[in-house]
Amino acid sequence: MNVPQTPGSRLDAYIDRYAARTRGMSASEIRALFAVASRPEVVSLAGGMPYLPALPLDAVSTVVEKLVSERGTVALQYGSGQGDETLREQICQVMALEGIDAHPDDVIVTVGSQQALDLVTRIFIDPGDVIIAEAPSYVGALGTFGSYQAEVVHVEMDDEGVIPEHLRNAIQSVRASGRRAKFFYTIPNFHNPAGVSLSVPRRREVLAICQQAGLLVLEDNPYGLLGFDSGPVRAMRADDADGVIYLGSFSKTFAPGFRVGWAVAPHAVREKLVLAAEASVLCPPSFSQLAVSTYLATQPWQEQIKVYRELYRERRDAMLESLADLMPPGARWTHPTGGFYVWLTLPPGLDSKAMLPRAVTARVAYVPGTAFFADGFGASSLRLSYCYPTPDRIREGVRRFAGVLEEELELWSTFGTGSGAGGLGRTERVDAPSPDTT
Amino acid sequence: MNVPQTPGSRLDAYIDRYAARTRGMSASEIRALFAVASRPEVVSLAGGMPYLPALPLDAVSTVVEKLVSERGTVALQYGSGQGDETLREQICQVMALEGIDAHPDDVIVTVGSQQALDLVTRIFIDPGDVIIAEAPSYVGALGTFGSYQAEVVHVEMDDEGVIPEHLRNAIQSVRASGRRAKFFYTIPNFHNPAGVSLSVPRRREVLAICQQAGLLVLEDNPYGLLGFDSGPVRAMRADDADGVIYLGSFSKTFAPGFRVGWAVAPHAVREKLVLAAEASVLCPPSFSQLAVSTYLATQPWQEQIKVYRELYRERRDAMLESLADLMPPGARWTHPTGGFYVWLTLPPGLDSKAMLPRAVTARVAYVPGTAFFADGFGASSLRLSYCYPTPDRIREGVRRFAGVLEEELELWSTFGTGSGAGGLGRTERVDAPSPDTT
Repeated sequence: MNVPQTPGSRLDAYIDRYAARTRGMSASEIRALFAVASRPEVVSLAGGMPYLPALPLDAVSTVVEKLVSERGTVALQYGSGQGDETLREQICQVMALEGIDAHPDDVIVTVGSQQALDLVTRIFIDPGDVIIAEAPSYVGALGTFGSYQAEVVHVEMDDEGVIPEHLRNAIQSVRASGRRAKFFYTIPNFHNPAGVSLSVPRRREVLAICQQAGLLVLEDNPYGLLGFDSGPVRAMRADDADGVIYLGSFSKTFAPGFRVGWAVAPHAVREKLVLAAEASVLCPPSFSQLAVSTYLATQPWQEQIKVYRELYRERRDAMLESLADLMPPGARWTHPTGGFYVWLTLPPGLDSKAMLPRAVTARVAYVPGTAFFADGFGASSLRLSYCYPTPDRIREGVRRFAGVLEEELELWSTFGTGSGAGGLGRTERVDAPSPDTT
Repeated sequence: MNVPQTPGSRLDAYIDRYAARTRGMSASEIRALFAVASRPEVVSLAGGMPYLPALPLDAVSTVVEKLVSERGTVALQYGSGQGDETLREQICQVMALEGIDAHPDDVIVTVGSQQALDLVTRIFIDPGDVIIAEAPSYVGALGTFGSYQAEVVHVEMDDEGVIPEHLRNAIQSVRASGRRAKFFYTIPNFHNPAGVSLSVPRRREVLAICQQAGLLVLEDNPYGLLGFDSGPVRAMRADDADGVIYLGSFSKTFAPGFRVGWAVAPHAVREKLVLAAEASVLCPPSFSQLAVSTYLATQPWQEQIKVYRELYRERRDAMLESLADLMPPGARWTHPTGGFYVWLTLPPGLDSKAMLPRAVTARVAYVPGTAFFADGFGASSLRLSYCYPTPDRIREGVRRFAGVLEEELELWSTFGTGSGAGGLGRTERVDAPSPDTT
């Protein structure tokens, strides 16, 4: 290159050549944590990894072995951009559990539901377009939205999920500002990171608000079958086939290593999604698709989901009991009835991001709330996950976390500041969800 | 939605809401062909599928069975956005065969090299930016470039690959027009679809031209190890680590169903690619990566590439012999020394796109040349692939194809037109590659 640089230099010779969208790409706070939190001495309450030791590995081993020996020339070959037809039929059967009546032709198989998020954003978002999302929202979705230069407008939640009145206000204020909202992104079940679910009456209300505003709903539902107390709740897509794009995933109900997710969309939108998918990866991995398809066809997959549910319920209980025992006054947290996460709001004065290095030193990790906001808020909150550690480790992790809080509060009462907590941590609005002190 | 529409209607209620980039997405001509060309009575000389019956399926079956039973909780779990470290080391060993000395940290594993194309385009291309590409060029790359609203400027090739003088002129004319060329996209070995390779002296010249212009080279090399006559040719990346992004794939040397490809890029660019990949799919499939990694570690993968080479050489011979026997005067074609494809230019007056329905009726399929140009050219040429059908089927396919040409030429001599050939097919410039009549 005719750009001055030292060979092997880590300086970026291309700094002036990137696309404008590349400036919106930055490493997530979760990613930076992975290296630290994966050390065995740290209790990680940070990650969202399903607990795979609960899978029947021998059975899965047989599934993949037979897949190659009996259908290897198909499983190892290119496939269609839309995804395997049999798998799409099976996906419709899975979604029927949530009241969805979809045709396999309206399903596209994706490389995890993350790719579905990417494709929906790609086909709808011009730079500056608005996406309305819950506050807080899924960190991976915020990363994707940012990479397409979307503006995210957050809407507050409480223990019943997003607050309809606030959603209505957000739509109006976006419109009044002359900007264009393209869709409302929501995780109605066992929200990541908020740990709450959208109540049934609110589902109807939120759908009506969006229908009236002509606003597409992007319903992201990786945890819907992982409820602890009752059967699956009726999906929003079940009541509006034309106004909702629904995203699903096998990452939490089976295993994430195959990267198989999907989207169901109105027909014309689905066609655009397939074109975008072909431009992006040509086709999803045939091997992954046929492995999941064979697993669904030959293994008791609903029984396996029951196993996961029992396991995560026990861990949720361990976490909630420990929090009730050990959290200081002023801390409050959500009570998930499914999924992987608890959202905890710190006592006034503490800053979850500034406190993290001290927590890691105390051998416990979490994700600071700021990761789940596009606008810098969230420092007063954090996400605790209970999906991967055993109940004993969860109790130990919460104990260490409580010790960190105690020290921070001492510093705060002595010096008027926690470790690096600035004004933002104290003065920001309380974003979400509402108090739920125990 | 408050948009008038019939429930279940195929009208697109969202037609006015798509992003500007979505208008650049259209179905590739290859895709439209798949449904037809996959009927058993049709000899498909259209697809680019590797011949998987040549794989040792029993061995692969054992690889995946052991992978799950011995390392299932890793192979089925989420992985890093950059890809598995051991696999990245092995990828460096594969690239060493082409003279590349790369560090595993500068490698990113992608969902097929198609995703690498997508990520590179995503981080560099703003709407209206120019990508310089060979004429013709890979249809999948053109689809990706179009989906990011790039303008593609084609540069002519001859039997030694891209013509340096034309490349120099293209760079100058782009600059003179006030537009910005972000990279030069090239397939130096066994070009898809042109079936030619960039000669060694020209590699040096092309690199020098790009270095002088400060133009990044995107070297796409899925077929490099599939040469029929001699060992691998030194990659362009081997001579310029700072100015070249190199893309590789296991789809043709092993199997495409795992969707494992990769990019090697200057360090700072590689960091951006990982961020873009995380926004796009979170991480590539762990299962696919560990399956390929185990295959490389435990199976004689270089012997398998030899098997593929012998097989494709035999098929290339069958196709070239049949073409020499059966093509009418005025037809000319390239003589590939590796890879999957022959590029054939029709006798004057014929139009490959208009002729296709007649060919399919005669039970032979190919890809019209127009698929490989961003600018509507290519109707005088077409791509024939010899990778998948057996030699006998190839001979039969070429026989049928020759019959179609004969009828077309008769029509032409009687009525002055082939089936639907318009002015474009007759008057367009001869794009590429140069005459090579046999």
